[in-house]
Amino acid sequence: MSVCVLAGGVGAARFLAGLVQATDPTEVTAVVNVGDDMVLHGLHISPDLDTCTYTLADAINPDTGWGLAGETWAAMDQLERLGGEAWFRLGDRDLATHLYRTQRLSEGAPLSAVTAELAAAWGLVCRLLPVTDDPLRTLVTLAATDTEPEREVGFQDWFVGQQHAPDVASLHFDGADAARPAPRVLEAIGDADVVVVAPSNPLVSIDPVLAVPGVRDAVVSRRESVVAVSPIIAGRALKGPADQLMANLGHEPSVVGVARLYAPLVGTLVIDTADAALAGAVEAEGVRGVAAPTIMSDRAAAQALAEVTVGAAA
Amino acid sequence: MSVCVLAGGVGAARFLAGLVQATDPTEVTAVVNVGDDMVLHGLHISPDLDTCTYTLADAINPDTGWGLAGETWAAMDQLERLGGEAWFRLGDRDLATHLYRTQRLSEGAPLSAVTAELAAAWGLVCRLLPVTDDPLRTLVTLAATDTEPEREVGFQDWFVGQQHAPDVASLHFDGADAARPAPRVLEAIGDADVVVVAPSNPLVSIDPVLAVPGVRDAVVSRRESVVAVSPIIAGRALKGPADQLMANLGHEPSVVGVARLYAPLVGTLVIDTADAALAGAVEAEGVRGVAAPTIMSDRAAAQALAEVTVGAAA
Repeated sequence: MSVCVLAGGVGAARFLAGLVQATDPTEVTAVVNVGDDMVLHGLHISPDLDTCTYTLADAINPDTGWGLAGETWAAMDQLERLGGEAWFRLGDRDLATHLYRTQRLSEGAPLSAVTAELAAAWGLVCRLLPVTDDPLRTLVTLAATDTEPEREVGFQDWFVGQQHAPDVASLHFDGADAARPAPRVLEAIGDADVVVVAPSNPLVSIDPVLAVPGVRDAVVSRRESVVAVSPIIAGRALKGPADQLMANLGHEPSVVGVARLYAPLVGTLVIDTADAALAGAVEAEGVRGVAAPTIMSDRAAAQALAEVTVGAAA
Repeated sequence: MSVCVLAGGVGAARFLAGLVQATDPTEVTAVVNVGDDMVLHGLHISPDLDTCTYTLADAINPDTGWGLAGETWAAMDQLERLGGEAWFRLGDRDLATHLYRTQRLSEGAPLSAVTAELAAAWGLVCRLLPVTDDPLRTLVTLAATDTEPEREVGFQDWFVGQQHAPDVASLHFDGADAARPAPRVLEAIGDADVVVVAPSNPLVSIDPVLAVPGVRDAVVSRRESVVAVSPIIAGRALKGPADQLMANLGHEPSVVGVARLYAPLVGTLVIDTADAALAGAVEAEGVRGVAAPTIMSDRAAAQALAEVTVGAAA
């Protein structure tokens, strides 16, 4: 049973960690968002790829969901002392990932090759692919406020720097039009027995993946084998701003709103048991609704969710 | 008494630390080599500027002469685990310097401004100037061996990566022709009461400074007020490959060879008491020879050397 997962950060990473226990990990491919990537301090940082890698390696900081467990902060503390930009917290061991990636990219290696090298160094068995090797950056237009006009900022500036507090007027995936799918991305989607849209933010984790020309069409053509897991439970995101963002951009922040967004490409939507009463409303959007526990409080829960999800397509 | 010091790495840094005790530190300006700079892991590293800064801040690792005292190595250890390039050792707190510099340069700040910011953060009172804000890179052509033809490598590849073991056929200061002196460099040389050529490697620390158009002429025009401190003692460099390099490139590795190299721009050469017998041979090169203890085993010794040096010009 081969499974291809469209993936963002924390939610996707936890799902993947469950999936590689639920099925043959050599048959699992994640196609990961790079719209959150940025260059800071000259370093190429790929937050979603790293969160997936660290989680699959069982090295993630379980309290934050990002960064490494048992991390030290000597560089960041010193950077603060120097008056540098320390709002994006990079632990000492995490820095090594960005040093490695940046050096290899500067040598001409594509991001997909570097991602594979890092995954191998961490002992991963499943395959992680950035959706593209080309530059693709999610830009966020902050809504006007009483005191400030609309303005566009980088994703991490909004998400981390401003803790996603400002309302969002629109999103733009800069570079997407010219981006090409990374090697094996379209094949992974086309050849998988099941394609899963992970419980990630539909608008800033999944949409940038779909924005790479060819990817959305590849998913749509597999629609009957595509299962999404709703990141919205009882109208709220478990973590992160998916609910706020959906409301900001005119989408109902509910499993019904998720079904409506995904209906063109998804045959089945796994919704939390808390939303079981909305299964009919989901089906009214043309998407099969399957209710199951979706809160991945530990690996066993993530594995159970992965089993239900893969089973829902079969 | 204002003093301008042409400076490389460890020897210059120690001299400067003595000088700021011997005279008003607000009247001290160091014009520092950037030929050793490099970009590694995407980070702009300025080894000589950092060695001067850390030494003046009394934060240098006294055992190595480079890097910070009490440093930790979490990032570098992890980079090794990932299979990355870990030959150039960057401590966790030292990394913060390079993160800061790279970020500021990427924002368009010139290296001289960033250097001043870092010096201020470390509480330095004297002024550190990179000789130029423009790219200038020392390239080393390794001599042919029985098994390998001549080939050109970056300075740090030879100096650190190969521990300066290979013989050198020639040096090239890439970018020097187009480089402009950083703001205040020519004024610092022109206005100082005394110009000191620090006990640094003449060929790879001082020559790249002089290679920036305008700098050599500025020093030559001050020749009577220019005092050099010989980095060669009894035919050997205390630290580093100055003796080997002088021999490789056809210069006698002795205080006489140093006098011959510096004669066009230096009125006085401070030589170690161990070489007192060579004072006459130094004078025969047209350079006044002053013998004094030049080994800077501690700050008091460095201060005494600075006093002798500055006094020798006056």
